[in-house]
Amino acid sequence: MRHFIDFSDLTLEEWAALYRKFDDILRHPAGYRERARGHVLGALFYEPSTRTSFSFQVAMHRLGGSVFAMSEPGSTSVAKGESLKDTIIMCSGYADIIVLRHPCEGAALAASLYARTPVINAGDGGHMHPTQTLTDLATITRLRGGIDGLNVGFCGDLKHGRTVHSLIRALSRFPGVSFYLISPRALAIPGYLRAFLHARGQRYVEVTGLDATMSQLDVLYMTRIQRERFPDPLEYERHRGVYILTASKMRAARPDMLVMHPLPRVDEIHPDVDGDPRAVYFEQARLGMYIRMALLLDLLSEPDRTPPDVAYRGGARLCANPHCITAREPHLPPLKKEGCCAYCDAWLP
Amino acid sequence: MRHFIDFSDLTLEEWAALYRKFDDILRHPAGYRERARGHVLGALFYEPSTRTSFSFQVAMHRLGGSVFAMSEPGSTSVAKGESLKDTIIMCSGYADIIVLRHPCEGAALAASLYARTPVINAGDGGHMHPTQTLTDLATITRLRGGIDGLNVGFCGDLKHGRTVHSLIRALSRFPGVSFYLISPRALAIPGYLRAFLHARGQRYVEVTGLDATMSQLDVLYMTRIQRERFPDPLEYERHRGVYILTASKMRAARPDMLVMHPLPRVDEIHPDVDGDPRAVYFEQARLGMYIRMALLLDLLSEPDRTPPDVAYRGGARLCANPHCITAREPHLPPLKKEGCCAYCDAWLP
Amino acid sequence: MRHFIDFSDLTLEEWAALYRKFDDILRHPAGYRERARGHVLGALFYEPSTRTSFSFQVAMHRLGGSVFAMSEPGSTSVAKGESLKDTIIMCSGYADIIVLRHPCEGAALAASLYARTPVINAGDGGHMHPTQTLTDLATITRLRGGIDGLNVGFCGDLKHGRTVHSLIRALSRFPGVSFYLISPRALAIPGYLRAFLHARGQRYVEVTGLDATMSQLDVLYMTRIQRERFPDPLEYERHRGVYILTASKMRAARPDMLVMHPLPRVDEIHPDVDGDPRAVYFEQARLGMYIRMALLLDLLSEPDRTPPDVAYRGGARLCANPHCITAREPHLPPLKKEGCCAYCDAWLP
Repeated sequence: MRHFIDFSDLTLEEWAALYRKFDDILRHPAGYRERARGHVLGALFYEPSTRTSFSFQVAMHRLGGSVFAMSEPGSTSVAKGESLKDTIIMCSGYADIIVLRHPCEGAALAASLYARTPVINAGDGGHMHPTQTLTDLATITRLRGGIDGLNVGFCGDLKHGRTVHSLIRALSRFPGVSFYLISPRALAIPGYLRAFLHARGQRYVEVTGLDATMSQLDVLYMTRIQRERFPDPLEYERHRGVYILTASKMRAARPDMLVMHPLPRVDEIHPDVDGDPRAVYFEQARLGMYIRMALLLDLLSEPDRTPPDVAYRGGARLCANPHCITAREPHLPPLKKEGCCAYCDAWLP
Repeated sequence: MRHFIDFSDLTLEEWAALYRKFDDILRHPAGYRERARGHVLGALFYEPSTRTSFSFQVAMHRLGGSVFAMSEPGSTSVAKGESLKDTIIMCSGYADIIVLRHPCEGAALAASLYARTPVINAGDGGHMHPTQTLTDLATITRLRGGIDGLNVGFCGDLKHGRTVHSLIRALSRFPGVSFYLISPRALAIPGYLRAFLHARGQRYVEVTGLDATMSQLDVLYMTRIQRERFPDPLEYERHRGVYILTASKMRAARPDMLVMHPLPRVDEIHPDVDGDPRAVYFEQARLGMYIRMALLLDLLSEPDRTPPDVAYRGGARLCANPHCITAREPHLPPLKKEGCCAYCDAWLP
Repeated sequence: MRHFIDFSDLTLEEWAALYRKFDDILRHPAGYRERARGHVLGALFYEPSTRTSFSFQVAMHRLGGSVFAMSEPGSTSVAKGESLKDTIIMCSGYADIIVLRHPCEGAALAASLYARTPVINAGDGGHMHPTQTLTDLATITRLRGGIDGLNVGFCGDLKHGRTVHSLIRALSRFPGVSFYLISPRALAIPGYLRAFLHARGQRYVEVTGLDATMSQLDVLYMTRIQRERFPDPLEYERHRGVYILTASKMRAARPDMLVMHPLPRVDEIHPDVDGDPRAVYFEQARLGMYIRMALLLDLLSEPDRTPPDVAYRGGARLCANPHCITAREPHLPPLKKEGCCAYCDAWLP
């Protein structure tokens, strides 16, 4: 692995090796304190993200490396109109590894074309957030002993939100996982994901209530419902209570169920749940730092190289998705992958 | 000591031990260069503060540790509505020690309830700023050989300003200190502090002019008078010259008097004083870094632990202070201390 | 050398020594990894500058040192009205070396009067940007084997822009350099610089077209033309194509010509040039980090000292330049140098 753009870049064997590294770091953190000594991480956050940014920064520090961070694109060359390409070439000349968060879909893949160093995708618009997926898988594996055969519920807004979509796709690669998709009808999973589950013969149910399925679940993954996502605000008010987890609802859950959440939460998990030992969302955030340590180490062990020259090709872009990085960076080569835009995965016209 | 929330948390013996550590660091800085190697400081500044933030960051660097800093709550999860509790649990999962500056009174105590790591109060609204107090005491002790029996003048706005109030309370614990409280009547010390000095039988005088008392002082602690604090702007213009320290006024001072200031200054100390060897405010800022090194080392030596579970308790808050952290974080447990709110020290109704 | 305020502070022998250090770091980076261990860089950026700031931060990290950075003066003591003097004294009490970028001309010299540590000028308004000059000279020397006798073209807006002016002055100190100054008439080099070249008997030509001179050049230094610099926007539209470098224009260039640019570029170099091995602007940015490592090492080896007391002198300022630091900091001593303001080099009235 040279870059980490999407979880699907990893084979399950590579994932297992990454998990073993993560597990070893948790057992012997002192043995890793100097492993990235002399290495520099460039954290390029074109959008703010405390949790992900801090998590990567501390991961690098705990390996003995150092960090430079761009967190305010407003006060940088970017504000002067510099292209992503130029910023990435410059920063990868200073750094040994780049972590990129960007509002455009496909930005991390675009960056990887030009970088002299490995690139990690820390979120590209609504497209992917694969280190959250690593965090989620590592948390489940550590706290439940494995992923195979689990009943995993997702509750809240399942229509929007790359976190849920990425995790569903990743979990579907493990044998025997069943999904319980709990949401208002208006915020159910998108059609393409339903088609994906069908095509794989994956076991799943879609329901509108949390209470009835609670007792079936090994993992309950909560997400936020934003009022503004509802077509009708009155309907939001009618429904929201259904999707708020409380200590009282937890009584129906199994004694070893995990409650997870990508954080930050607002009010979708009541604070009276926090003291419950099954509420593992804070531990999940903490474990995210360790899986990122494992990922950094893995990529830093790649030999240095100059990127292959990406020949300039003018002409019209292929992709019609306005959020795709190719809409903002017209000089990107027009890359396809199985009938889709290779950057943002949108169907090509 | 597990957390450092207020100077009154320290016994005078603990203060003396901290000072000895500070003194040893100043003598042998090279011996401390690797003492916090592998440790991470989380600097959470909900309000900007260059001096305090830089001072802590460099203190940690000079011990060989590393830092992650939140200085722009606008660009973080906090802006998405995350509670202080959640932010603290998350960040203390990444860090080994937390430094918190927050606009609400009692925020540091609240944070200490949830943190997995030691918490240092770097200022909680108008309530406390105890590491400034440590800085002030360390400066006086180092440059005057001790605190006992000194005549300490405070000049400027003594009504507002946690720096002055905290320092007066701290100094009153040392034997024989006399206070000269120099301010316009409208900006004299608050009634509760006068009552405190009376109750302790502390020697103090309140005067409106600086010149007449100058020759009595061992320490002159200057503070800023903000125009907007005056009920009448004309009165401000009439008075301000009285409270500006100049080289000319310094002629009446003792040859070993210290001029101190928490910085930043605006115009309350004229630049013609800066070259005077008695002007120690810049040295005071520098020494603040070393006392913070001593404090960090002391707290980092605490064994790790999980915080005791703070059971969720719903219901009305006790405290009526609108600046209290309990006004912003309704799920905090309602804690009392001697008839006062344990967070902000306001009298309970 | 105690401070680095302008390239003219260096003799050519000192430059040669600095270049040798740079060369050695590039050959043996691992040997420098711990050379600044325990040292702290204070990066004070009163204006944003990604490239320069990152370059210095990573340079310090790659020497094993640490960094604290002010990049948002809006959220600091500076916003409370603190003088440059006070900020510099404070920060140089925390740091071992200061890097300063400031919008006022002469700010770095002013800072050097008060700092307890070496000061590096990372840009003072439109006045100087000497570490860019170091970067440019190091790039030419490394990639062409030396500077003597080269034909150097500058293309674009030669009227504004300290980068070009500084580099022309610096190059003129090497024997046999010829200049090709390529710009619209309205954006030709300023009169004082033309007078300087005349006085030195320097060989130079001023032309309005790039194509005709292309084949003569050993180095082509491109700069941005900003639309708003043109008196007449229509003229801008007529002319801009002339000053945009393309792959097609590169056909006329020598096989070993270097294309340089201080970056960020907007559209003055077409991306179809990027794949050309003669396009060295990204390598130039990367080498800038290594020459800054050499500079930091050089200055960190200076013994500590307290700055000479700069006696306060009131009274009128000498300089009439509204962008001079003396316009913002009235307490600076009025210093002259050869009939000019010693801070900003403006002629004194």
